[in-house]
Amino acid sequence: MTLALDPTAQDLLFREAHTANTFTGEPVSEEQIQAVYDLIKLAPTAFNQSPLRITLLRSREARERLLPLMSRGNRDKTGSAPLTAILSVDLDFHEKLPRLLPARPTLKDDMYGEAELRERHGSFNATLQAGYFLLGVRAAGLAAGPMSGFDAQGVDKEFFGDGRQKALLVVNIGRPGPDAFLPRKPRLEYAEAVSVL
Amino acid sequence: MTLALDPTAQDLLFREAHTANTFTGEPVSEEQIQAVYDLIKLAPTAFNQSPLRITLLRSREARERLLPLMSRGNRDKTGSAPLTAILSVDLDFHEKLPRLLPARPTLKDDMYGEAELRERHGSFNATLQAGYFLLGVRAAGLAAGPMSGFDAQGVDKEFFGDGRQKALLVVNIGRPGPDAFLPRKPRLEYAEAVSVL
Repeated sequence: MTLALDPTAQDLLFREAHTANTFTGEPVSEEQIQAVYDLIKLAPTAFNQSPLRITLLRSREARERLLPLMSRGNRDKTGSAPLTAILSVDLDFHEKLPRLLPARPTLKDDMYGEAELRERHGSFNATLQAGYFLLGVRAAGLAAGPMSGFDAQGVDKEFFGDGRQKALLVVNIGRPGPDAFLPRKPRLEYAEAVSVL
Repeated sequence: MTLALDPTAQDLLFREAHTANTFTGEPVSEEQIQAVYDLIKLAPTAFNQSPLRITLLRSREARERLLPLMSRGNRDKTGSAPLTAILSVDLDFHEKLPRLLPARPTLKDDMYGEAELRERHGSFNATLQAGYFLLGVRAAGLAAGPMSGFDAQGVDKEFFGDGRQKALLVVNIGRPGPDAFLPRKPRLEYAEAVSVL
């Protein structure tokens, strides 16, 4: 075997997993999301900065605030998913750096005193973590439906009014419902994506 | 069990995996990287745009071109890793969209005719894929050493002179060597990273 990961896990995370477009009504528990977080929090970010924030929309009221901000094609599925998460970057992640990286107590100010660099590095590392999160949802035996089609400025204004967070991705989470999956689309061949020097 | 992923796979990908800072001399084969790619290519990107490109530096000559562009603290480990990959975004990913998303043949021009939006969406989705790649390296039983500390403009100029790609992350890949790992640093508590509305 070329991969150390066993085939069942390969199937769960990658081969048999698909972006879900419909969901059953089965709820997603807080314990499940905590287990996902406790797994994916361990994967790497630069300087251990851990800038990803996850906003779970559990109440009907919170969901109703999001729906008009989703693009038209994403509204129905978002309205019917048992749980929807807004993944965002904490633009003030540096405030927690002295605790997250005790060996570099001055990094918070030396490197990240400046907002533009903070936003650029934070967004990059939170996006890496968003990738971990999508696989983490699958690790919980759940389907993820990640969506970039939403009014990002509107979501920031509605949910992150203090300007400290910026939305990156909205993710529906649940058990796949009827006709949940589109057929797998083609992927690039190895030689198209990978070059060797 | 709250997670469907078995504990051995949890350990391999997350709990027992660490960013490696030293490596043994054991080579990483092309077959291993192909297996990683064939796994992670399946994970989702918006519109299946698949903008990540992976440049494997196998020759001594290619490695020598990279080393002076790495930050001082990343040079020795990069010089000693059996394989180093530059992860980049293909800024012209839209040219392949008609094949990757046959149902939307006009998306290439309608949405992505404009370079700024293309770079923004492409960089975001390639970064999600970078997250998948790091876990994919671990799925191969290898250790990854991701590094943001490099001269990104210098790497772009040296390796992507035609301006079509932008470097996102440099990753050392191999078997961990002596004293490869630093102690695990603290992570944010669930309630610090996750909020419920």
